[in-house]
Amino acid sequence: RVNGDRLWDSLMDMAKIGPGIAGGNNRQTLTDSDAEGRNLFRTWCEGAGLTLGVDKMGTMFATRPGTDPDALPVYVGSHLDTQPTGGKYDGVLGVLSALEVVRSMNDLGVKTKHPIVVTNWTNEEGARFAPAMLASGVFAGVHTLEYAYDRKDPDGKTFGDELKRIGWVGDEEVGARKMHAYFEYHIEQGPILEVENKQIGVVTHCQGLWWLEFTLTGREAHTGSTPMNMRVNAGLAMSRIMEMVQTVAMENQPGAVGGVGQVFFTPNSRNVLPGKVVFTVDIRSPDQAKLDGMRARIEAEAPKICEALGVGCTIEAIGHFAPVTFDPTLVSRVRGAAERLGYSHMDLISGAGHDACWAAKVAPTTMVMCPCVGGLSHNEAEDISKEWATAGADVLFHAVVETAEI
Amino acid sequence: RVNGDRLWDSLMDMAKIGPGIAGGNNRQTLTDSDAEGRNLFRTWCEGAGLTLGVDKMGTMFATRPGTDPDALPVYVGSHLDTQPTGGKYDGVLGVLSALEVVRSMNDLGVKTKHPIVVTNWTNEEGARFAPAMLASGVFAGVHTLEYAYDRKDPDGKTFGDELKRIGWVGDEEVGARKMHAYFEYHIEQGPILEVENKQIGVVTHCQGLWWLEFTLTGREAHTGSTPMNMRVNAGLAMSRIMEMVQTVAMENQPGAVGGVGQVFFTPNSRNVLPGKVVFTVDIRSPDQAKLDGMRARIEAEAPKICEALGVGCTIEAIGHFAPVTFDPTLVSRVRGAAERLGYSHMDLISGAGHDACWAAKVAPTTMVMCPCVGGLSHNEAEDISKEWATAGADVLFHAVVETAEI
Ligand SMILES: NC(=O)NCCC(=O)O
Ligand SMILES: NC(=O)NCCC(=O)O
Repeated sequence: RVNGDRLWDSLMDMAKIGPGIAGGNNRQTLTDSDAEGRNLFRTWCEGAGLTLGVDKMGTMFATRPGTDPDALPVYVGSHLDTQPTGGKYDGVLGVLSALEVVRSMNDLGVKTKHPIVVTNWTNEEGARFAPAMLASGVFAGVHTLEYAYDRKDPDGKTFGDELKRIGWVGDEEVGARKMHAYFEYHIEQGPILEVENKQIGVVTHCQGLWWLEFTLTGREAHTGSTPMNMRVNAGLAMSRIMEMVQTVAMENQPGAVGGVGQVFFTPNSRNVLPGKVVFTVDIRSPDQAKLDGMRARIEAEAPKICEALGVGCTIEAIGHFAPVTFDPTLVSRVRGAAERLGYSHMDLISGAGHDACWAAKVAPTTMVMCPCVGGLSHNEAEDISKEWATAGADVLFHAVVETAEI
Repeated sequence: RVNGDRLWDSLMDMAKIGPGIAGGNNRQTLTDSDAEGRNLFRTWCEGAGLTLGVDKMGTMFATRPGTDPDALPVYVGSHLDTQPTGGKYDGVLGVLSALEVVRSMNDLGVKTKHPIVVTNWTNEEGARFAPAMLASGVFAGVHTLEYAYDRKDPDGKTFGDELKRIGWVGDEEVGARKMHAYFEYHIEQGPILEVENKQIGVVTHCQGLWWLEFTLTGREAHTGSTPMNMRVNAGLAMSRIMEMVQTVAMENQPGAVGGVGQVFFTPNSRNVLPGKVVFTVDIRSPDQAKLDGMRARIEAEAPKICEALGVGCTIEAIGHFAPVTFDPTLVSRVRGAAERLGYSHMDLISGAGHDACWAAKVAPTTMVMCPCVGGLSHNEAEDISKEWATAGADVLFHAVVETAEI
């Protein structure tokens, strides 16, 4: 069993960096706070005797050597970056539990054939630079390094410049490392485990995603002196598309979600009908046909909604991953570990995207999940108990050590 | 007749200050550009022999003396501030035509019994500091000076501090001046005169307005892992309220408008359902009962829409003026002037709010309007012809001189 108190203390120490405004964190990727968090994590890795490598995306790989020089490493990790109003556990639990796994192995003097690499992926959240899971995406060959470096934040700063600015451009080629397996432990970010009263989610799949960015072109005009029948109202078109996305998601129940997180009106003045409205749609399903069907329907209906109002409509797909099926051997190893340790468990489909989804393209991969209070995440009020955190870390420990072979 | 070329040249010179990004202007109130525009206008007033007074709201009053020391002045003006993406004529035409009226009187050696005061009201637009028509509102006793000084722009800067910063806090008590009459010349900002092919709008009324600010409270949550039935989606509630406002406006046709110009999502991240949505609704009608009926219906239906989604809803009325009936004597003087000058004309209800709406509370008031291309305003592409501008200025000249008595 791992040391749950030590894990919890590390979580609380990391949460002091980039504090939020309501008890959570704002430690967005490639900010000064991110750099500070990385430094603390590096110190901890060094304290645990790990050797740090950094790749050109800034991803941190901290290695505990194995006994067989030819054996590929088992990678275990997640991300330390947060949403602008994020929680203390989303991502962080996975990285610090990976660290706790090697700390516990050190305590117990456990040696494994395969090295173990504690991993902190850069820009998992995608809040500052879309798309999400950017570094693991480059690692898995889904994006080029140039594409990633060119991503812009809302202020127009690029990923490449900001990575350089915080001093975390490493020298390793991205994706050069080969993995024996990849494990990621994460809070569920959804309500199921808590509702079902289970300690452990054995993650069998991850649902797929499309991120669509809409740009609607209306006619900027006076809200008072422009008669209703002369308006080219891009805001109204947006509201109808939002309702349509909701309908499409509801008609694809169960196993589908759809929503809008981001809206920009231009010029965003009270007495001006917006000339331009940009907003993002996030649709997901574990079922590829459903996912693509929802996208096709939204892309077919939105232009009709806009046309009826005379509004111009362009839709750009700026993020995508297909539904993922995790490695059956690793999945049953996680299930077996939970069983052996006496933790209640159930199979689960991940509702959120994770670096594991990209890692699954290049290595046998799976995930472990623990409940979070009210299913709440991407919210500063995100919460878990020390017991929940520890149970998942125990399961991770067992599954990782078994895979790394004593 | 006035000198249309000189008027046009002044318009073009003023438009060089605070240029927009698409041929219009961004000379928002109490910015450095506003100060620059004020300085240019002051120079012109001095050149025309006028004496400048400034009140504690920064409103500029440039006086041409009358022959009777006891006669109250005739005020003529509008505003030099613009929307963030505003046109070159909205407001500016009225101020510079008032200046052209006295320039032409100087040319012709016309003396009047009543003084004439060319007026530039501060913050008519309300884009930076809501509500609109702020200085004329204080002048008319609708707002207190303290209320006005406390208004905040989106960056949290106050009106009072910004007025001081640009150096335009005058020494006159606001509203101390008494008016014999107030005239305002403005572009229509709507399509009617152009469609009806008339040169002059004889403005008989101004429609009333409510500005409502909605604050919707949802639950920040992950767009992927939060099932549809567990969402507290403030964005969806907003979209339904937008559609409802549209319906309410359409059901009150003819003679009503309703729309949304401003939207703020928090945290405004792609993969986070918004925890807070703030947006503004602008409803107007020349019919008081209709206007109040629309407000009542929106305020009754919005909470129901929100309740059905579990979303919290507060509504604050942050701007209001009742429909205005302009002074019949002045209105027929404008109509008579257009007639005499041979300009085609029609009676018109102003769709937009104007400083004239507040001035009407404290003095006999009316307005003159000219067409604008496509009815477009609050848009950098706002356009008028020199001939249109001149015709209205001619009418203004005649009505003002008649009221000021030769
Ligand atoms: N786990 C997580 O929140 N990842 C961000 C990408 C997503 O929106 O799923
Ligand atoms: N004329 C004008 O655009 N005034 C601003 C106030 C309003 O929205 O009507």
